[in-house]
Amino acid sequence: MISKTDQLLFVVDMAGTLVFGIEGATAAVAGNLDYFGVLVLGFATALGGGIVRDLLIGAIPPASIRDWRYPAMAFTGAGVVIIWHSFVALIPSTLIMVLDAAGLGLFAVAGAGKALAFGLEPLLCVLMGTITGVGGGTIRDIMLARVPNILRQDIYAVAALVGSAVMIAGMKMGKPRRLMAAAGGAVCFLLRVISVWQHWNLPRVGEH
Amino acid sequence: MISKTDQLLFVVDMAGTLVFGIEGATAAVAGNLDYFGVLVLGFATALGGGIVRDLLIGAIPPASIRDWRYPAMAFTGAGVVIIWHSFVALIPSTLIMVLDAAGLGLFAVAGAGKALAFGLEPLLCVLMGTITGVGGGTIRDIMLARVPNILRQDIYAVAALVGSAVMIAGMKMGKPRRLMAAAGGAVCFLLRVISVWQHWNLPRVGEH
Amino acid sequence: MISKTDQLLFVVDMAGTLVFGIEGATAAVAGNLDYFGVLVLGFATALGGGIVRDLLIGAIPPASIRDWRYPAMAFTGAGVVIIWHSFVALIPSTLIMVLDAAGLGLFAVAGAGKALAFGLEPLLCVLMGTITGVGGGTIRDIMLARVPNILRQDIYAVAALVGSAVMIAGMKMGKPRRLMAAAGGAVCFLLRVISVWQHWNLPRVGEH
Repeated sequence: MISKTDQLLFVVDMAGTLVFGIEGATAAVAGNLDYFGVLVLGFATALGGGIVRDLLIGAIPPASIRDWRYPAMAFTGAGVVIIWHSFVALIPSTLIMVLDAAGLGLFAVAGAGKALAFGLEPLLCVLMGTITGVGGGTIRDIMLARVPNILRQDIYAVAALVGSAVMIAGMKMGKPRRLMAAAGGAVCFLLRVISVWQHWNLPRVGEH
Repeated sequence: MISKTDQLLFVVDMAGTLVFGIEGATAAVAGNLDYFGVLVLGFATALGGGIVRDLLIGAIPPASIRDWRYPAMAFTGAGVVIIWHSFVALIPSTLIMVLDAAGLGLFAVAGAGKALAFGLEPLLCVLMGTITGVGGGTIRDIMLARVPNILRQDIYAVAALVGSAVMIAGMKMGKPRRLMAAAGGAVCFLLRVISVWQHWNLPRVGEH
Repeated sequence: MISKTDQLLFVVDMAGTLVFGIEGATAAVAGNLDYFGVLVLGFATALGGGIVRDLLIGAIPPASIRDWRYPAMAFTGAGVVIIWHSFVALIPSTLIMVLDAAGLGLFAVAGAGKALAFGLEPLLCVLMGTITGVGGGTIRDIMLARVPNILRQDIYAVAALVGSAVMIAGMKMGKPRRLMAAAGGAVCFLLRVISVWQHWNLPRVGEH
């Protein structure tokens, strides 16, 4: 059973790793980093959230350090940006946003599910799902010496949090894992896409 | 014995968690973050130091990840700031400084004591106490893209360091744990409060 | 065998720790930090890379937390800067660069070798060697609220990466550990020194 769970997690993780690797590398190019910086930000954005989650839940060494296919996939994403940057720059930002929302949903439910498999309490599984989804982007922003974007604007982390909560709540109510992973991922994806489309933002303290 | 030690650590940790959560959330509001950012900075400021300590000493998953009451308490502190921010803004800064000094002392001795219980050497127990006290604030400042305040001014980390050292030295000389925790916490608290009152600062290299 | 390996790693690590501690402390002085900040940056620069590596490969508590001689050596480096700062400021920058390149090579092969001893795959051993070499400087730059220098310019991380790769490739081909450590360290050292001398830089995306 563990191995089947791991297999599902693996496929889910690899799909998101490529998208997040491309995004991190793109941010590195915009930040005027050199080739090495592009590879590092691709790696950190794609795998940073999962690594932090694994350190926290005690899955050590983290999956991305045990298995060369994770860093290889993240570096592939960065390599795509290095080699075809003129082409990557032409991709419509809406398409990138939609792919990113899909990656966010995949990472969130993968992270929440892994935390549950490691015996964490529900509230903390939801936190771990959120960290898996947004941790990489947070590390990327800190490395670029910026206040992480997720702390300032957009329904992004909240989408990961809600998707994780849907999955964990469903599994606690006895629903099958795969069904709830699909439902949680879909909720996260839709919440993110609709919030961008509708220009939703979280309020700030002191605003009405 | 472990369970009694853990119980003492738990009460001590929860008391400081609320104060530090409120402070982290207040910094987030001042930094113009949104509601999610306020929750994250409350969490990171309150629990970041203890999480880093636990990762380093091998208490994995960290206490704040194993037990939902820690994040719940940190989020409560952040929630207080979100809901009653106009009231929180009226609290005199001297009172906040005094409560913070108390939290610092509690965290430092809790951290140093936990490191000792995990078999670390004395010098490293003192370091772990200091990290427990100041780690959360350091992460908060890094997330706000600022040079951590403790590296630039004030007798703050030094108070945590001295309080931790008092506790560890006393326990190594065979004094009871609770007595030395109280003594170390009091020394840290007083050193911090007096240093603010007397405008003490650490020198910089090259200054006379 | 483990203990002999550990002994070799220890000597290698201590030699680099002093150099990196001095460099981190010097950056802290330039950043106008106080005495505590100088000690923290000395510690973080000297030991940060190894601590991150140890957390990732599962050597917990990290070597620098288990053994007081590591932090003592890092603080010694910082203390040298605090006490003899006028003298340290007179050291020619070329000498510092050469010592740093030596430290980089030592850290890289020590890190790659430790990862291999912990059973990591070759690609990840190379990554761990690189992280050991450049992790401390990256943490130092983040604490100074700067984009890490290694992401922007110079053949620095790449030298650590190539040196680690030489060592791991040689060991995988059955060559003796010490020989390959010497070869990998020398390659890293020479690549770094020559790149500074010849003003080599990595290209940026979009440059010709």
